[in-house]
Amino acid sequence: MKLTILGSSSALPTSERNPSAHVLCAHERFFLIDCGEGTQHQLRKNHIRFSKINHIFISHLHGDHVFGLYGLLSTLSLMGRQTPVHLYAPQNFGQMINSHLNDFDIHLNFELDFIPLSGKDPVQILDDKYLTVTSFPLKHRIPTFGFLFRDKTADRNIKKESIEKYKIPVARINSIKKGADLVLNDGTIIKNEELTTSPPEPLSYAYCSDTKYFKKLSSYVKGVSLLYHEATFGRDLSSLAKMSGHSTTVDAAHIAAEAGAGALLIGHFSARYRDTGGLLEETRELFPVTYAAKDGMTLDIGKLKPL
Amino acid sequence: MKLTILGSSSALPTSERNPSAHVLCAHERFFLIDCGEGTQHQLRKNHIRFSKINHIFISHLHGDHVFGLYGLLSTLSLMGRQTPVHLYAPQNFGQMINSHLNDFDIHLNFELDFIPLSGKDPVQILDDKYLTVTSFPLKHRIPTFGFLFRDKTADRNIKKESIEKYKIPVARINSIKKGADLVLNDGTIIKNEELTTSPPEPLSYAYCSDTKYFKKLSSYVKGVSLLYHEATFGRDLSSLAKMSGHSTTVDAAHIAAEAGAGALLIGHFSARYRDTGGLLEETRELFPVTYAAKDGMTLDIGKLKPL
Repeated sequence: MKLTILGSSSALPTSERNPSAHVLCAHERFFLIDCGEGTQHQLRKNHIRFSKINHIFISHLHGDHVFGLYGLLSTLSLMGRQTPVHLYAPQNFGQMINSHLNDFDIHLNFELDFIPLSGKDPVQILDDKYLTVTSFPLKHRIPTFGFLFRDKTADRNIKKESIEKYKIPVARINSIKKGADLVLNDGTIIKNEELTTSPPEPLSYAYCSDTKYFKKLSSYVKGVSLLYHEATFGRDLSSLAKMSGHSTTVDAAHIAAEAGAGALLIGHFSARYRDTGGLLEETRELFPVTYAAKDGMTLDIGKLKPL
Repeated sequence: MKLTILGSSSALPTSERNPSAHVLCAHERFFLIDCGEGTQHQLRKNHIRFSKINHIFISHLHGDHVFGLYGLLSTLSLMGRQTPVHLYAPQNFGQMINSHLNDFDIHLNFELDFIPLSGKDPVQILDDKYLTVTSFPLKHRIPTFGFLFRDKTADRNIKKESIEKYKIPVARINSIKKGADLVLNDGTIIKNEELTTSPPEPLSYAYCSDTKYFKKLSSYVKGVSLLYHEATFGRDLSSLAKMSGHSTTVDAAHIAAEAGAGALLIGHFSARYRDTGGLLEETRELFPVTYAAKDGMTLDIGKLKPL
């Protein structure tokens, strides 16, 4: 699982920071999360292949999370795409996107499969061979959803020396990786634990933007490998954060600590912070393994280390 | 009059070319013409002050000419703007933009003064102290309008030596610049021609994107100093151009020649042309004083010379 930041600004972009968009790469597929203005440009700049994006997740209907979507969909169509795009967004967006594409004379060559988000509880919205995605409610000025991407348990690792020692036929390897024992020709049973080692811990990534602090959020992202949590403001602007439905560095650190996250990534920075070093420092005081989002940055979620 | 190109691509942007947007700077004010996705980013990159944009002109309602507008208006509001923005666009956009801003919870701090474009004849849509703007119909797949910006005749230049020779009082200078004669104390009349020289020729700029070739277009932009005319395709793709309501290099050159334009600027290039040198060469064969648009390029319309 690798995460690339395409945009780290809040509503007012700066010359260094584009509006919100993340790309999660898992099992050679790209999951686009939010799609602020300029996302297609940022995808190109970061050499992310448009054709490998099949799922797009929109957290809420504020422009800095959506205004790149029309152009991106139009571009996918002009590039000749025919495979469906699965679009997960707050339920009222279904009608809005269709009428907007229509207003702008955009006729997509591919199916736009709309999956509405709603409700007050976590809901599993995707379940495939490799991972699951769950949406959960955030607390912002309008209905807003976070997303939790969780790898499925990987196969066990088969030991090279066992293959040689027991001359394991290729046809059996897959079932042994899944946990089966080996029965030799003479009837001897070799226990799976002798043949394999444990698979790596399944990785997970949670995206929480935009939201004010609420304690229950940490239960939605319990034990996540990497938590992205907005930190629009520094600790001194907590009343502004509350008023505008946003979080401070302190809020983000608290959620990460309460969730027992492996690492924290903060972003969605207010334009007032030209340099985000101060915000990073503040957060690390409370939660040391914190990164500050930067446009074009890629994090390998399996390799994040305590800093 | 200076023109800055913010975007020179057609519907499918490339890593080098953003979708359509031009900025005309005249008398220290910026006129934004079309507003493709990423325009606000390009404005920042080209150090164009947002606060000096009071007039925005949208040629037609295709996304590559509009999708940067929502973000730009939102940004202007977040920056605390209070002076009105005058938005000139096809008439059905009035309702669309309001409902879209509303859908996205965008509450502008300033008045958005909408001036609808319609009809089949040129219409003067702006007339102020320094210039006039006329819209005229183009021929595209949907209602589309071109714009002609024309400087008003400037004041005559008063000769320094006349001021000294006749001891012209400061209070009289303005009227002499406007063409008045000077009456000396002894009743002698000094003719204006002796006191002044002709003002510079008023400059003009015409924007024509998107359109297929039609002869009448040249009459709308007669004698323009700089004609921007789209050239989405090279001469070999004239049937594709016709079919899609666009122009070739040859079409653009013909309109420039028929209009007696001072210079021609081509743009709105199809993504198939990685390098636009071939398109430029083709056009120059028919109309030598041609420039090819490039993102970030600025042309000083008063100083364009035969190449």
